[in-house]
Amino acid sequence: MLGVRCLLRSVRFCSSAPFPKHKPSAKLSVRDALGAQNTSGERIKVQGWIRSVRSQKEVLFLHVNDGSSLESLQIVADSSLDSRELTFGSSVEIQGQLIKSPSKRQNVELKAEKIKVIGNCDAKAFPIKYKERHPLEYLRQYPHFRCRTNVLGSILRIRSEAMAAIHSFFKDSGFVHIHTPIITSNDAEGAGELFQLEPSGKLKVPEKNFFNVPAFLTVSGQLHLEVMSGAFTQVFTFGPTFRAENSQSRRHLAEFYMVEAEISFVDSLQDLMQVIEELFKATAMMVLSNCPEDVELCHKFIAPGQKDRLEHMLKNNFLIISYTEAVEILKQASQNFTFTPEWGVDLQTEHEKYLVKHCGNIPVFVINYPLAIKPFYMRDNEDGPQHTVAAVDLLVPGVGELFGGGLREERYHFLEERLARYLDLRRFGSVPHGGFGMGFERYLQCILGVDNIKDVIPFPRFPHSCLL
Amino acid sequence: MLGVRCLLRSVRFCSSAPFPKHKPSAKLSVRDALGAQNTSGERIKVQGWIRSVRSQKEVLFLHVNDGSSLESLQIVADSSLDSRELTFGSSVEIQGQLIKSPSKRQNVELKAEKIKVIGNCDAKAFPIKYKERHPLEYLRQYPHFRCRTNVLGSILRIRSEAMAAIHSFFKDSGFVHIHTPIITSNDAEGAGELFQLEPSGKLKVPEKNFFNVPAFLTVSGQLHLEVMSGAFTQVFTFGPTFRAENSQSRRHLAEFYMVEAEISFVDSLQDLMQVIEELFKATAMMVLSNCPEDVELCHKFIAPGQKDRLEHMLKNNFLIISYTEAVEILKQASQNFTFTPEWGVDLQTEHEKYLVKHCGNIPVFVINYPLAIKPFYMRDNEDGPQHTVAAVDLLVPGVGELFGGGLREERYHFLEERLARYLDLRRFGSVPHGGFGMGFERYLQCILGVDNIKDVIPFPRFPHSCLL
Repeated sequence: MLGVRCLLRSVRFCSSAPFPKHKPSAKLSVRDALGAQNTSGERIKVQGWIRSVRSQKEVLFLHVNDGSSLESLQIVADSSLDSRELTFGSSVEIQGQLIKSPSKRQNVELKAEKIKVIGNCDAKAFPIKYKERHPLEYLRQYPHFRCRTNVLGSILRIRSEAMAAIHSFFKDSGFVHIHTPIITSNDAEGAGELFQLEPSGKLKVPEKNFFNVPAFLTVSGQLHLEVMSGAFTQVFTFGPTFRAENSQSRRHLAEFYMVEAEISFVDSLQDLMQVIEELFKATAMMVLSNCPEDVELCHKFIAPGQKDRLEHMLKNNFLIISYTEAVEILKQASQNFTFTPEWGVDLQTEHEKYLVKHCGNIPVFVINYPLAIKPFYMRDNEDGPQHTVAAVDLLVPGVGELFGGGLREERYHFLEERLARYLDLRRFGSVPHGGFGMGFERYLQCILGVDNIKDVIPFPRFPHSCLL
Repeated sequence: MLGVRCLLRSVRFCSSAPFPKHKPSAKLSVRDALGAQNTSGERIKVQGWIRSVRSQKEVLFLHVNDGSSLESLQIVADSSLDSRELTFGSSVEIQGQLIKSPSKRQNVELKAEKIKVIGNCDAKAFPIKYKERHPLEYLRQYPHFRCRTNVLGSILRIRSEAMAAIHSFFKDSGFVHIHTPIITSNDAEGAGELFQLEPSGKLKVPEKNFFNVPAFLTVSGQLHLEVMSGAFTQVFTFGPTFRAENSQSRRHLAEFYMVEAEISFVDSLQDLMQVIEELFKATAMMVLSNCPEDVELCHKFIAPGQKDRLEHMLKNNFLIISYTEAVEILKQASQNFTFTPEWGVDLQTEHEKYLVKHCGNIPVFVINYPLAIKPFYMRDNEDGPQHTVAAVDLLVPGVGELFGGGLREERYHFLEERLARYLDLRRFGSVPHGGFGMGFERYLQCILGVDNIKDVIPFPRFPHSCLL
């Protein structure tokens, strides 16, 4: 029997990397190289993809990017290091000395001593072209390559930062994160068309469901968060949700991400609105301060003017109007709407847009909707003569509805004729609670000013399209 | 037309909470109350669920829990505040003075001045019983109530902390987070049976797919991470994955979470193993230090001895053996296996368990598997006579395989006869890369010693069961 001693020995044998003969150059990300304080010629190694090549008589200039930042690292090399393989898109490894750049365009540059091409790129066949600013629509055809452009690189880094900011906002506020299920036997409250699922292939038995019951992809984690809000006073989830709607709009996807929260013992909509406003502002500020160059790129090239619009949203207190006031405002509008505004009918996108503009492009909460147009679990305001529930939507410039939420009906007798399990939750130590959901892609659209939702998600899914 | 001035006014009108007449008591979570430094009789308000009631002649003792910590807050009240509604499970709001507890069992207690029952709980009908330690199997029947027990409360807080720890590990290491898609047209590499999906209801057209192609639930985000690793040198994802396997084991679920990472420009398996070992150890340490009481509860009541086993894993360097060595060890074992170990055949759970035990219950990497039993994208070691690929699995005590990964075949000509799009990725600046995946539920099982995977996920999905 081989002993543990032998196993420990094998640690050394397994390495396929040759034992280094002299001190290797430190491997740095482009981001770390750009931010290096020590530029007195330290030897480093950088790996990445060529973003530009400029070959002069005696000097070769390259820009190398590895996705760690928008900015590329300038490589300066003796033209003897030039080769036909150094094309746009090729992957390279470069060793050299990190020095202060004589140019004002960058702080540091890498004086190359060795350039190794790792993977060739046939620039002619490559659908992303050197120095071209491809339209976002063009790039959508290439979900496997578009991340190599500046703009998608920036959006994806921002998405990653925004996700982290949202998680840390909730964690710092004492919320417990819950993975609400993706597959559910619950067909929700008609929040839209559902995807149903069954095993493919040989496990498929037409007459029998895999889970014994029909199973669907979730449209919201709300019910499952409500379950948890009977044990934890503050919970949230941040995961994918689905709609099988045949919608080709620039605001809808078949698969998108939602941030949802549920808070127990809330007294009023005010409590919820405060969390929503803080969430939006605090996380947007974090994104702005953690990736300023990436945000600047979006604001500069995709949505001119968005920087000012965003600042305007962040520095003003969000407004609050009732649904009834909103309908009044719409009725008095000089604008002609396709859908005539009327009390008791849901607001349309055109109405939402008008209301936001009317509010001076400050995000506005619309509260207290008619009972008849909101789901059964919304808390009855017991008002009259116009019967409303404690629901709230947040409308934001450019996007429309960003958040939706409300107080939940926690009173047993108000729900008595409804769903059995939902009722069960109200029998044992029921508490007033409320919550909200925010579409994460719309949040990114709102911050960045990106017009089409398909450009703020890595792999968009919508009717007739499921690339990769 | 209503002006913005009017809107601003409506902010004040909208609040349904009455304007407080005198300074309200500060609302504290149980966790914050327990950790309060100021115990000189500050007036506070606490909300939560009654975990115990002890009614004496002149004094009433309650324990109130709100999910913010395992420990409950002791409430001491004059027996005049007692009522028949103060039952196990009821939700209450208590106002009083936070004082230093005379007992040694807790630091602080709340001297109640006012107790308000928010929601009654019929303790007889409530399936969770006072003072009973229900078996985990019993609790699984009540996915909507089990979070109200100490043990599930602890597991869910740990799960939330572990998720945050994993995210911060990657963020601090410079990885970009990518939301890889849940719905995919890719049927992977036969990683198991798939769920196929179609719209339910009226959108369903038998002859036509919603996405124009058959669509499935993802079994792994690897391909999509590989796409991104052509632009970002370090990427990760942490999301749900699915298997439609008819497996009723304590290690399998139809829906589970995976942490997957992909790193560009890796030279050897050593690079990957280093990240895997650091990820496991750093995040486990974070969980241990962020929720020590919750972990202690699991280690004490669910898995006695697990504390020492975990410490043993954390303080030792993980071991490394080759697949070939592993088969040798198994062949020389005195144990009789159901499946005879043989070179070229995959390791079974019984083999994995034996290997871990043989290694002194230290996690062990098994590397360099036969080409024939690993997916096509694994990097060819070009060795002989036994042809292997650079794949790695990490086996851990109690669980077996926790991580699986490897170097990816980046060389175009090695893949030439394979998947078209996969090939496309290798044509334009291909780089050596590798990655791994870790089952998040198994990770929790490994740290906590929880035997059944269904107890470490809020809403387990498995054949014949999709509750809620």
